[in-house]
Amino acid sequence: MNLSSIKGPADLKKIPRAELPALCDEMRKAMLKRTAAHGGHVGSDLGFLEATVALHYVFSSPVDKIVFDVSHQAYPHKMLTGRMEAYLDPAKYDSVSGYSEPSESEHDHFIVGHTSTSVSLACGLAKARDLKGEKFNVVAVIGDGSLTGGMAFEGLNNFAEQGGNGIIVFNDNQMSIAPNHGGFLGSLARLRETKGADSCNYFRALGLDYMYVDDGNDVNALIDAFGKVKDIDHPIVVHVNTEKGHGYRFAVEDKETWHWSMPWNIETGKPLMEFGENVHDRTAEHLLAMMKDDPMLVVINAAVPSFGGFKPGRRARAGKQFVDPGICEEHACAFASALAKGGARPVWFVASTFLQRAYDQLSHDLAVNSNPAVIVVCAAGLSAMNDVTHIGFFDIPMASNIPNLVYLCPTCEREYFAMLDWALKQRERPVVIRMCGAKESGAKVESDYSATGSFSVTRRGSKVAIFGLGNFHALAMETAELLGKDGIEATVVNPRFAGDVDEVLLKELSKDHALFVTLEDGVVAGGFGQKVAAAASSLGVRTIVKGAPKRFEDRFDPEELMNRCGLTPGQIAAEVVSAMKA
Amino acid sequence: MNLSSIKGPADLKKIPRAELPALCDEMRKAMLKRTAAHGGHVGSDLGFLEATVALHYVFSSPVDKIVFDVSHQAYPHKMLTGRMEAYLDPAKYDSVSGYSEPSESEHDHFIVGHTSTSVSLACGLAKARDLKGEKFNVVAVIGDGSLTGGMAFEGLNNFAEQGGNGIIVFNDNQMSIAPNHGGFLGSLARLRETKGADSCNYFRALGLDYMYVDDGNDVNALIDAFGKVKDIDHPIVVHVNTEKGHGYRFAVEDKETWHWSMPWNIETGKPLMEFGENVHDRTAEHLLAMMKDDPMLVVINAAVPSFGGFKPGRRARAGKQFVDPGICEEHACAFASALAKGGARPVWFVASTFLQRAYDQLSHDLAVNSNPAVIVVCAAGLSAMNDVTHIGFFDIPMASNIPNLVYLCPTCEREYFAMLDWALKQRERPVVIRMCGAKESGAKVESDYSATGSFSVTRRGSKVAIFGLGNFHALAMETAELLGKDGIEATVVNPRFAGDVDEVLLKELSKDHALFVTLEDGVVAGGFGQKVAAAASSLGVRTIVKGAPKRFEDRFDPEELMNRCGLTPGQIAAEVVSAMKA
Repeated sequence: MNLSSIKGPADLKKIPRAELPALCDEMRKAMLKRTAAHGGHVGSDLGFLEATVALHYVFSSPVDKIVFDVSHQAYPHKMLTGRMEAYLDPAKYDSVSGYSEPSESEHDHFIVGHTSTSVSLACGLAKARDLKGEKFNVVAVIGDGSLTGGMAFEGLNNFAEQGGNGIIVFNDNQMSIAPNHGGFLGSLARLRETKGADSCNYFRALGLDYMYVDDGNDVNALIDAFGKVKDIDHPIVVHVNTEKGHGYRFAVEDKETWHWSMPWNIETGKPLMEFGENVHDRTAEHLLAMMKDDPMLVVINAAVPSFGGFKPGRRARAGKQFVDPGICEEHACAFASALAKGGARPVWFVASTFLQRAYDQLSHDLAVNSNPAVIVVCAAGLSAMNDVTHIGFFDIPMASNIPNLVYLCPTCEREYFAMLDWALKQRERPVVIRMCGAKESGAKVESDYSATGSFSVTRRGSKVAIFGLGNFHALAMETAELLGKDGIEATVVNPRFAGDVDEVLLKELSKDHALFVTLEDGVVAGGFGQKVAAAASSLGVRTIVKGAPKRFEDRFDPEELMNRCGLTPGQIAAEVVSAMKA
Repeated sequence: MNLSSIKGPADLKKIPRAELPALCDEMRKAMLKRTAAHGGHVGSDLGFLEATVALHYVFSSPVDKIVFDVSHQAYPHKMLTGRMEAYLDPAKYDSVSGYSEPSESEHDHFIVGHTSTSVSLACGLAKARDLKGEKFNVVAVIGDGSLTGGMAFEGLNNFAEQGGNGIIVFNDNQMSIAPNHGGFLGSLARLRETKGADSCNYFRALGLDYMYVDDGNDVNALIDAFGKVKDIDHPIVVHVNTEKGHGYRFAVEDKETWHWSMPWNIETGKPLMEFGENVHDRTAEHLLAMMKDDPMLVVINAAVPSFGGFKPGRRARAGKQFVDPGICEEHACAFASALAKGGARPVWFVASTFLQRAYDQLSHDLAVNSNPAVIVVCAAGLSAMNDVTHIGFFDIPMASNIPNLVYLCPTCEREYFAMLDWALKQRERPVVIRMCGAKESGAKVESDYSATGSFSVTRRGSKVAIFGLGNFHALAMETAELLGKDGIEATVVNPRFAGDVDEVLLKELSKDHALFVTLEDGVVAGGFGQKVAAAASSLGVRTIVKGAPKRFEDRFDPEELMNRCGLTPGQIAAEVVSAMKA
């Protein structure tokens, strides 16, 4: 079969049903080849391939609208909607994003990368359609992992009341990123066992109609099922039992490893690059060692155990001291607050981009209550390529402006562990720490960080002081080195606290400094540097605030971005020299 | 019965069961009297009174821990846990907060004011208990309104998997703040109709055990039920069918009006103060008039219709163009984004404190996608007393640092409506508007706000420029008046945009201004003024940033707070004069 000839859903519809299984096989091979060379999501795309073919065979996208949850499973959808070449031609592998992307195709309706949103988005599209008096199908695709996020419940609950056409394809592959969690998994299992007949049905309890498809990797069974619900006049859940990793042995046998992968050899299943132990691994081992003496230490990872380094073996070692509550950052944060209140020592590992889900809980459930929970934020920052939906630039303005919450930014791995140890020992306040695996930064590492807002001077010079927050402390040191060659002996400060300003130090420095420079690994808007600038203003010291502009960056080149932000040591030094002359 | 003699749960337990109904009657009278004089939540406290007496009769607080959701129904709990005098002695009415408050009593475990959190908090307390190997009961109280928030689903789902003792008292009063919403209400109704026997059970689908109590206002029936689940070894939901407003005719007959009330006359049910039409009412009428010509205009209010002025009659007039999806800000925000994508004109009304629930959706679902949804934020700011859980100080740093999202702060009601009209007309960007009902501010009102970050000069002076953001523009004008008396002709700027800086204007002003003063109605950390300070720094202009400090304020006196922040015209003028001399 010539995959290149499929330029859109209309071409797919011309293929006889009997030939569709062969089409799926070829698509699977092409998709695997591309992902193995490029890296990307593996298991969910393999598992949802047949369902995607069936959806496009039955429905008429883009008039009918398909909204994918997370949209990491949208590779087959992209193949069938005008983007096949991106999966066939290695030169075009980079022409598509890893998520749904309206700028690529009219078949994509939203930029999506977080979980549990598709039902709400589909519900809104359906409501707009009904207000206009139009007729088309709105299809939301959502997995069992994504259903653990409360937002999905909210969407289902509202869609059921709203009524009108709505088809929620529930892709039940019995996995989240790692194994899925939650009490509702039992009733999902009973639905599968009874082929959908069990009367205790989560979806029906929410007022939704329901249909079950047992072989969710049988493209023709799926076409029959979707054909029955097409143009339906009310919302229905089509529960599709799929196999994550379907058709690729390694991905079926080890679903967690094959959720997402860096480039690998298809034949052997081995990665092309080997990565050694990293700061995540060392974090997990550090905490496992502490757990031996402290039964109250609890690690929380909401669905992404790798953030804390908790691979399966380590989860087993942690036993009841490891909790994965599902993809539910809101619950995870409040749960951590209550654990701390109850006398436990919780530490929650979370990506910067997913911490966004818990802003209110950070404030209302944790900070207002001042419970000593610890949160370790994995923020890729400017130095690691990211999709626009997963940027790690915004956690400083988001979290550091909340009262009572101490936001610590270590400059190196040793300081990170020192801060983590201190945070877990103290019982007075909630602490957020930005994970850092950098080598020695030259900054002083302390054992007590209880003096919130006290900066540490790494080297004392005069005229210009560079405040290098967290992992940008190294950049401050490099810049100071360069300035030394120009005869400027700059002061370098390790602020440590992202959300507070050391007014005493600033005043002291203002005596023999005319210029402050702040460096932070994130957007400057609402961040650390602007606080320093405001405080320095009354001291008559000028401040240059450096970081990323307030903009969503998509699949950026970190080096290009750092250059664009003027964040290389040479650029910063030149800006300092120029400012000193002004 | 002498209510004063009940100093704690131990005193309650001495009362014979036969006398408890009489106790409830007396507590109800006292509670009503206090609330009528003081103002506060009405219906939920009346409805949950018997259940509270039963809980304290059966369980042993504070060893057994009761966690209230929202905790606006905790008045009877406070009466029974050492705070009876606050409900009997008018001089002590103010000695307790309206929510659970650990600083008042060891029977309160969290400061709580937002919904849907109690199950997560209880789950965390239970986990800490189990890690310690202790034995006691953990009880979460949650209402049917709060269950519409997805976080409650997350908590239930995790608690079911966690296991161990946990009692979730589901207070089903068939109301949210206004009528409750969502598809799951049908199955709740069937559970009530079948006395809990219906097999399609939401809670059982989540893996939880379940029990039903039909007369949730029969204190002895409740004692029997709670006695059965005390010391249970797994989580169970006790579904209690209560009547909101029980025992007070007016509150039973009009549950929405009596959810919360300002002081009123108990006999007549009439408020002691009459309030005329306000900006919320005028907003609703304005939008209802627009709806006549625009079937695509949709008003969204997540459970608190009063924010948009949508009282019952107006909701009926809006018909399908009004949506209350339940207490679910996450869904509401993504739903609004999708409505806008689908060609509708959505406007979502939300309190500053509840917008916090949707930070990720503001960013990921709305701003990344740049859909033209409109959000009107009701931010009480510094000028209206608030509980610490409901402060409206943080929306500027929270929302204005998100790219693509335009954050508009009108200075008066006329400018607010101009901004609202513009926001609903344009199709390029998501817009957040801070509702403002202030009288004419002297600021220019435009019809086009598409030039993001362009400030407007209200009066042009020299030397000092005062940037009065939103409702603080009036303060800037008053300060300028005062300065005029000192011979300083200050410039007054209406920034309009909270999240951006007009670099061109700042540069122009820097030619004949040496001092900028920024005034904003919220915390300065991460806010508007710090942006101006950072931009002004490179122009050699000093900036004084004024607003609230980064601190949670609880039940504050607005006048005292404004004074403490140095935000009176006299204080600001004095600070300016002093700075001009420096």
